[in-house]
Amino acid sequence: MTIEASRDEALAEPIRLGMVGGGRAAFIGAVHRIAARLDDHYRLVAGALSSDPARARASAADLGIDPSRAYGSFAEMAEREAARADGIEAVSIVTPNHLHAPVAAAFLRAGIHVICDKPLSATVAEAEELVALQRQTGRIFALTHNYTGYPMVRQARAMVRDGALGTIRLVQMEYLQDWLTEPLESAGSKQAEWRTDPARAGAGGCIGDIGTHAYNLGAFVSGLEAEALLARLTTFVPGRRLDDDVQVLLRYAGGAQGLLWASQVAVGNENGLKLRVHGTAGGLEWHQENPNLLWFTPFGEPKRLITRGGAGAGPEAARVTRVPAGHPEGYLEGFANIYSEVAAAIRAARAGRLPDPAVTFQDLADGLRGMQFIEAAVRSSGDGNVWTALPAGPR
Amino acid sequence: MTIEASRDEALAEPIRLGMVGGGRAAFIGAVHRIAARLDDHYRLVAGALSSDPARARASAADLGIDPSRAYGSFAEMAEREAARADGIEAVSIVTPNHLHAPVAAAFLRAGIHVICDKPLSATVAEAEELVALQRQTGRIFALTHNYTGYPMVRQARAMVRDGALGTIRLVQMEYLQDWLTEPLESAGSKQAEWRTDPARAGAGGCIGDIGTHAYNLGAFVSGLEAEALLARLTTFVPGRRLDDDVQVLLRYAGGAQGLLWASQVAVGNENGLKLRVHGTAGGLEWHQENPNLLWFTPFGEPKRLITRGGAGAGPEAARVTRVPAGHPEGYLEGFANIYSEVAAAIRAARAGRLPDPAVTFQDLADGLRGMQFIEAAVRSSGDGNVWTALPAGPR
Amino acid sequence: MTIEASRDEALAEPIRLGMVGGGRAAFIGAVHRIAARLDDHYRLVAGALSSDPARARASAADLGIDPSRAYGSFAEMAEREAARADGIEAVSIVTPNHLHAPVAAAFLRAGIHVICDKPLSATVAEAEELVALQRQTGRIFALTHNYTGYPMVRQARAMVRDGALGTIRLVQMEYLQDWLTEPLESAGSKQAEWRTDPARAGAGGCIGDIGTHAYNLGAFVSGLEAEALLARLTTFVPGRRLDDDVQVLLRYAGGAQGLLWASQVAVGNENGLKLRVHGTAGGLEWHQENPNLLWFTPFGEPKRLITRGGAGAGPEAARVTRVPAGHPEGYLEGFANIYSEVAAAIRAARAGRLPDPAVTFQDLADGLRGMQFIEAAVRSSGDGNVWTALPAGPR
Amino acid sequence: MTIEASRDEALAEPIRLGMVGGGRAAFIGAVHRIAARLDDHYRLVAGALSSDPARARASAADLGIDPSRAYGSFAEMAEREAARADGIEAVSIVTPNHLHAPVAAAFLRAGIHVICDKPLSATVAEAEELVALQRQTGRIFALTHNYTGYPMVRQARAMVRDGALGTIRLVQMEYLQDWLTEPLESAGSKQAEWRTDPARAGAGGCIGDIGTHAYNLGAFVSGLEAEALLARLTTFVPGRRLDDDVQVLLRYAGGAQGLLWASQVAVGNENGLKLRVHGTAGGLEWHQENPNLLWFTPFGEPKRLITRGGAGAGPEAARVTRVPAGHPEGYLEGFANIYSEVAAAIRAARAGRLPDPAVTFQDLADGLRGMQFIEAAVRSSGDGNVWTALPAGPR
Repeated sequence: MTIEASRDEALAEPIRLGMVGGGRAAFIGAVHRIAARLDDHYRLVAGALSSDPARARASAADLGIDPSRAYGSFAEMAEREAARADGIEAVSIVTPNHLHAPVAAAFLRAGIHVICDKPLSATVAEAEELVALQRQTGRIFALTHNYTGYPMVRQARAMVRDGALGTIRLVQMEYLQDWLTEPLESAGSKQAEWRTDPARAGAGGCIGDIGTHAYNLGAFVSGLEAEALLARLTTFVPGRRLDDDVQVLLRYAGGAQGLLWASQVAVGNENGLKLRVHGTAGGLEWHQENPNLLWFTPFGEPKRLITRGGAGAGPEAARVTRVPAGHPEGYLEGFANIYSEVAAAIRAARAGRLPDPAVTFQDLADGLRGMQFIEAAVRSSGDGNVWTALPAGPR
Repeated sequence: MTIEASRDEALAEPIRLGMVGGGRAAFIGAVHRIAARLDDHYRLVAGALSSDPARARASAADLGIDPSRAYGSFAEMAEREAARADGIEAVSIVTPNHLHAPVAAAFLRAGIHVICDKPLSATVAEAEELVALQRQTGRIFALTHNYTGYPMVRQARAMVRDGALGTIRLVQMEYLQDWLTEPLESAGSKQAEWRTDPARAGAGGCIGDIGTHAYNLGAFVSGLEAEALLARLTTFVPGRRLDDDVQVLLRYAGGAQGLLWASQVAVGNENGLKLRVHGTAGGLEWHQENPNLLWFTPFGEPKRLITRGGAGAGPEAARVTRVPAGHPEGYLEGFANIYSEVAAAIRAARAGRLPDPAVTFQDLADGLRGMQFIEAAVRSSGDGNVWTALPAGPR
Repeated sequence: MTIEASRDEALAEPIRLGMVGGGRAAFIGAVHRIAARLDDHYRLVAGALSSDPARARASAADLGIDPSRAYGSFAEMAEREAARADGIEAVSIVTPNHLHAPVAAAFLRAGIHVICDKPLSATVAEAEELVALQRQTGRIFALTHNYTGYPMVRQARAMVRDGALGTIRLVQMEYLQDWLTEPLESAGSKQAEWRTDPARAGAGGCIGDIGTHAYNLGAFVSGLEAEALLARLTTFVPGRRLDDDVQVLLRYAGGAQGLLWASQVAVGNENGLKLRVHGTAGGLEWHQENPNLLWFTPFGEPKRLITRGGAGAGPEAARVTRVPAGHPEGYLEGFANIYSEVAAAIRAARAGRLPDPAVTFQDLADGLRGMQFIEAAVRSSGDGNVWTALPAGPR
Repeated sequence: MTIEASRDEALAEPIRLGMVGGGRAAFIGAVHRIAARLDDHYRLVAGALSSDPARARASAADLGIDPSRAYGSFAEMAEREAARADGIEAVSIVTPNHLHAPVAAAFLRAGIHVICDKPLSATVAEAEELVALQRQTGRIFALTHNYTGYPMVRQARAMVRDGALGTIRLVQMEYLQDWLTEPLESAGSKQAEWRTDPARAGAGGCIGDIGTHAYNLGAFVSGLEAEALLARLTTFVPGRRLDDDVQVLLRYAGGAQGLLWASQVAVGNENGLKLRVHGTAGGLEWHQENPNLLWFTPFGEPKRLITRGGAGAGPEAARVTRVPAGHPEGYLEGFANIYSEVAAAIRAARAGRLPDPAVTFQDLADGLRGMQFIEAAVRSSGDGNVWTALPAGPR
């Protein structure tokens, strides 16, 4: 119960949290709230939960937020919360993609830490502005690439880092869904509407919604960032305005190669995010739908099943593990790990110290890389599936 | 997000919760707290968290409980909380088994609802006293047979009830672990110590700790209670004082037959709770370690995979489901479902009405059946593995 | 390609084989013929393929058997083949169960090696007579418990023998089917008819047909024979004359315990033969339906997947392996391994030498144990599910 | 037992078979021999089993081939067998790749049917010459793309053809191995030597050895041939002369898209050939390592498991199925299905009639497509991973 135990230090003072977006009927807002609550590090005390003021107020009431802190706009919220002695310390941004950057900028300027859903922004330019802004303000910025919160993903990353696979040769990522097999956006689905609308989702459909998750996961575990990519984006469903299938070849520094496939029309898949990494000395395989397992093959030896909490799982997995092996943890626990990692960073900031080096979450640099990935893929595909360079990372 | 959405009705007033047991280093206490917190129905405001008063106070401080409500004994806690206007409405009991009954009795008498870990008590006699006491007090009593909170277990139960399997012929339950393969109780493990100590665990070791879970799961899904059993309890580890392996033949009313195997020395298993039910028209299979899947075979047709949140899952699963198909929920979510079901019952009681008929949790009747199962199994085994009747249930 | 390679020694002279039973429309006869043919050790040159002479002749013609060696009765065949200079060296017996013993006796007396399907006979008494008869004649007698031919079953047996599991505590066997869920024997199925007819199948239905396979597999791998059993045989389908579900507790010498479940009415299962063995130091699991895999967990370490032909598989598996790892072998290959093992024994006998010690097949002793198992189980069940001793084995 | 039953028609006269290549220590020759033998349609009566005459003779003796028909060269064999009244009717070619075309040409010219391992030839030009030659001679030419012999691959193809998936959108193929992770060709492995030698393997390494299998499987099941491809071939192992990893984007007529990944350095894989096909109405998934299963998801319904011999499997699977559901068939059975299909065609040719329309095997057109695939992929990769057209098929 490492995560909950870590609360000891400062439990008397939970982190005051606000939320932008996430009103009634929103999916991801509720997920963020559970994630924030699971380890009891946060109190949700303010919100601009909807762009519709009446809906915003009603949603706030549902959630027990004081009416005086139920705002009609994120700008008002940033300004007024910054002015309160008991104002929020952090904000969760769970709006459609196109609002991520303006909202984040407003809160960073107000001196408030930011926890933002992915992708970071609508464009690379916006992402770069956020990077610059964060440098000025020094606030914490966390991007909820939640799959990096799974204990066995942490385990995989540690094994790669520690050389269990030797030199990495191949990184294969896939994220397959089928919920957009038919034109759901024309059938009244709010979720489908904004995700297939370039004005709200950005230039990428499938690639922005789930392709970035797959790319981020590959980078997180392998420790490699791509130098160049060659992408094919396809829109299979007639009338759809953004891609619903993405296939990408990647070239990593040092000679490793990547292959990424994301689809929202691959019938028979729900949230089929999978990662395979192969090196000179071993191979790893992980599936999000059964995330407590990690398959590891040392070259020339039998495949081994490493389980969350079980034999073979190391400290990186253990510190984000709550229950014993064989009792599955899932999506919400992985998501909560991100929130609890950020909480540790915020508590350290409160105390004027650096966070424990083990604290791990995806940040603006990762968000910028994700936007560069999306833009390069869209360009590569538009140019006829040609190799397209990715900028060197800010690290 | 059905479960969280159901909070709307009364969120302004969370349920005031106390806890007995569950201090520092306890495993199951932390699980109960997360379960209570996940859907935000409860506030933990009082505790008698350890039989060691200093430890009790320190644990309470960890959890943000006001020092004035950190009690040194459960009896004091029951008395003083009952006297407060803002006293707890419900108590969670997470002590070793032998204390379940006395603690529960104290709180029932104090007019406080009870949420109690399993098994219900140390003896059938104690269980029967609790049944009588509840009849007098009218308080809610929930037993946390948490596996009944998994959505696909609910789905399985609904399918059996609705006849998808025809007449049930066979119920096979197994719960396999290996953590007690060696004499851990002599090696300083607190968890192993009390679970293998008849004074604290009761007459059953493996059968009380996990065998009852398997039995309860079979009964919950099949809708059948056993009339008689024939059990073999074995202690494989030299020096161990309670059984570490259990094999039981069951005879159900109406002719169905059961087979139950629970073990704590089956090397290669973590929490291998599995259920198979076979009827004249179909068969079901469910595994706790990958709980979002339910395998269903209509006789003579291809096997089907029903997923939590996916096609084929009905309303019984949907109402305890938080996230979409393919995003796994796990042990804590299942456990939280029990807490949220109980919350619905408590809110109904507050309002002087009956809970929604869909609200489902295991109660004293189930707890009494569990104790009868344990006692009959111990007796059958002691008598040389002979058929031993189980009392007809109270329903 | 060990098995085929071993043919070198004497390929110029294949073994002359006859068959009793296995005419048109019979299932298992064709399996035996493929098994005999796969490694090219045998030539089928004679047959009494049906008790109906016309059908026997037609079936022989189908198979290219010379009409002069297509016999109308097994007795005639034994007599006339024994008299030929080029008479058969071995006979395959693939009749319904009740004929196994008389046919086998006729050929043993005629000095011909016997390969017989299981169960060995209709009664223990018959089995004992065969044991005595073999002692007199010195002929080879192989019982086709074909599952012992799977390479990973050989691997499992070797690992148990070599101590990889420590002292064995638990042996769990199951063999689940669903093809007799409905009264197929009343619907014109020949296969169902004789298997549910006590006159042809013997005293056991499910227990004789598949329960013995499961029991034999457990004994083969664990190296343990049971001292006593307690069985429950059930007939679920109304009107059926033999059991269609069997549940057995077993007690092995030395303190290990066994649990066996076989069913022909477990909807959702095809040929679900599984074995789990747990010892003080490790655990094994094997599934017949995906037989190229063996799961091995050394206590306290990650589970390992040992594959046929892959890393971790030893010489016992290798010598009955034909193709590389990842190219699955199946039921027919496993069956053929038995035939090829017997061929090695027959070639050794031809040459007047002992077979290589690695040559392994189930024989009359195993067949007798199987019959004792069936009879004891039937008796235990008839007596109300009481412990019933099994005779000490002949070894 | 459809396949064996089909032997009835002409069993009295098995097909006289010769073999080129496949001497001692060769892997694939033994596989072909077992495949030919399994259903008893062939007799191996002649061979040029090695380019080393002494080895050729010794290998022939091993296999019981008359010394007078153990040839030192394939040319001599073709000539002399063609001249015999009892000469071979068909030849199996199991040499390294570069000899396929010259050997095949010699036997076609001699009027002998050809069964040839894949890939068809070393170059497209050679393949085209064979196509022309077959037109002149009218002989049967079968290419042993053995994976098309698996019953569930036949089932998948039938389901696509019958519209169960709607319009195909996506075809994903992968074939992953790890046996060439290290430079085995420098360590004395004959198998690795010729497969990584351009002079013997042709221009493609991994792509020719296993990539073509994956491509062929995708085409066989989907019924689609690619119009263009974009490939990346990589040689990861230093010093290796051919590719050991291949990633290919495919564009099919009609708008479907393909993605193919084959690797010989993906640690943790043995023969991981997998196929996924997704259409507007459903999705399919098949894995060679557990080939008796086919996963089918009708859009919006639960996933279904169709098993070989079980419910849901249609006539296309049934006619190449030998044993009941739940008794696995494997690689050799699938391979034997190709041989038995060809036998049916040869028997029809003997009788001067057309084969049954159900008879299915890959032929020269498929072989030519495979060579075009290899050459286009090599060219695309050499040109910097650019789209490269594939010629329209000969059909």
